[in-house]
Amino acid sequence: MSNQKYYAGIDLGGTFIKCGIADEEGTILIKDMIPTGKERPYPEVAADMANMVKDLEARAGVTVAGVGVGVPGVIDSARGVIVYSCNFDWRMVPLGETLQSLIEAPVFLTNDANIAALGECYAGAGKKYKDQVFITLGTGVGSGIILDGKLVEGGSSAGAEIGHMSIRSKGEPCPCGRRGCFEVYASATALIRQTKKAMEKDASSTLWEICNGDLNQVCGKTVFDGVALGDKTAKRVLKTYIEYLSEGLLNIANIFRPQIILLGGGISGAGDVLLKPVQRKVKRFVYGGSKYAPVRVEIATLGNDAGMLGGIYLAKTKLQ
Amino acid sequence: MSNQKYYAGIDLGGTFIKCGIADEEGTILIKDMIPTGKERPYPEVAADMANMVKDLEARAGVTVAGVGVGVPGVIDSARGVIVYSCNFDWRMVPLGETLQSLIEAPVFLTNDANIAALGECYAGAGKKYKDQVFITLGTGVGSGIILDGKLVEGGSSAGAEIGHMSIRSKGEPCPCGRRGCFEVYASATALIRQTKKAMEKDASSTLWEICNGDLNQVCGKTVFDGVALGDKTAKRVLKTYIEYLSEGLLNIANIFRPQIILLGGGISGAGDVLLKPVQRKVKRFVYGGSKYAPVRVEIATLGNDAGMLGGIYLAKTKLQ
Repeated sequence: MSNQKYYAGIDLGGTFIKCGIADEEGTILIKDMIPTGKERPYPEVAADMANMVKDLEARAGVTVAGVGVGVPGVIDSARGVIVYSCNFDWRMVPLGETLQSLIEAPVFLTNDANIAALGECYAGAGKKYKDQVFITLGTGVGSGIILDGKLVEGGSSAGAEIGHMSIRSKGEPCPCGRRGCFEVYASATALIRQTKKAMEKDASSTLWEICNGDLNQVCGKTVFDGVALGDKTAKRVLKTYIEYLSEGLLNIANIFRPQIILLGGGISGAGDVLLKPVQRKVKRFVYGGSKYAPVRVEIATLGNDAGMLGGIYLAKTKLQ
Repeated sequence: MSNQKYYAGIDLGGTFIKCGIADEEGTILIKDMIPTGKERPYPEVAADMANMVKDLEARAGVTVAGVGVGVPGVIDSARGVIVYSCNFDWRMVPLGETLQSLIEAPVFLTNDANIAALGECYAGAGKKYKDQVFITLGTGVGSGIILDGKLVEGGSSAGAEIGHMSIRSKGEPCPCGRRGCFEVYASATALIRQTKKAMEKDASSTLWEICNGDLNQVCGKTVFDGVALGDKTAKRVLKTYIEYLSEGLLNIANIFRPQIILLGGGISGAGDVLLKPVQRKVKRFVYGGSKYAPVRVEIATLGNDAGMLGGIYLAKTKLQ
């Protein structure tokens, strides 16, 4: 008999529940996804999650030693409680306890950005680095911090809200109640808002053609399409976006001095046109210069599997 | 024979070397200080530090199990190397190795803000809390981060440069090369600059009387004296200072979610007139509200002994 151990990772998203089982080396044996049905009472969602693990165990012919779960929101990971998930409209939901009553192996929870960070650290672009910060540029700005190979969740696992670090005191208002939050300048939502605003001031911009003359068709990609066509307004929007993004990344660099900052989420798909100027700025302005402890910036590589792989890694590291 | 262990802490400052020996409970047996003579070659400074430990050991009749040292600058704590200390004009100085060749007990180094944070955590205002951030409002803004009772130094121990987190993109220039750094708004130096600037615009301000009509006499205390006398300009200066200070502290609260943020350094001596409005702002604007994982803000209590006590704690925790 082999001594190989297996772990399950679950990425609980607003649309899909993704689950996978991997061995100790992180090789995925099997994975699957089902619709979340997030409007249902939480015990039903939990039962589906537990059944997915059992189903995949049966199909792969293995038993898992642990299960790691990522959930969007503020998670009390020590107690396995969803303190608040805006996405699910859950408050103080004891998901960990419920899952544990349905699954034999130990269950561990953390939030979705943390778990994606663990995935990238374990199996993705951050594989070689023990100090890293993962930033998602999506609807909001999420973040996961790993120092010395371990997740830094902050007190009561309620920290790592880098999206709500103000980079512009008295700046644009944020729904969190503050002004100038990183998220308000660097999320995909922000970039779309900035693109629309610039278009309203420039009727001759090619951006109008790209979105068929309809502001509602502006998406995170629009400005990059405009830049590719040499549109001046698009270039200006992107330049400003990159300035603010770099400001936040430089703060992260100075606070955590990670070996690498990984960019994920929709906007990171833009690639070099975004990455290169950001890399230059971080290299140039990081505190004390880049000679001692340089800070790389790269694009994350796992995409949609990051959360599931992170769950597997969470279970593995917790049980080591 | 007793099993009691003893530890030495050294606070290497630009003006004085402070050294003390304490038992495991942190009770100080003996302490002393000598002038640093920082312009001397570093082996002479190191020899003085080692001799202080030996002298205090002899006087107290004990032998220490470990020595913890705090040094201003960027410290590679894993290797005990002073990467750069602006205060001493030292670059790549192997102080740890030199001290270790002179002292029998194991020697541990970290930077001065980290060590002061450890002191406060161990023996000062942060005693009850395992997640805390210590901020010094002095010539610059220094910081030490402790999560789950352990120092968070960042990758290559070059992080925790919270003073160089920009809170105002495109704001006031900072000598580090960026703009809007927290330090440029919240240090004692910043408050003095802000006070002078306001005085130049208001010839009738009481602040002029306080500093005998001489701008060169403006210090960190001037504006607080003005506020105590009801001076409007002083009140405005303090209000703006508190806004920026709170902005930085809220960023810290959202990133680390510590149970407590401790304020040290000269400006923290102002007490409630500074503390109360800052506490209100942090309570009101911290991400997701103050119900789950509230973030306290308090004044540090150890003052000049923080570094020495932190050194003792550093040695103790490293050897546990």
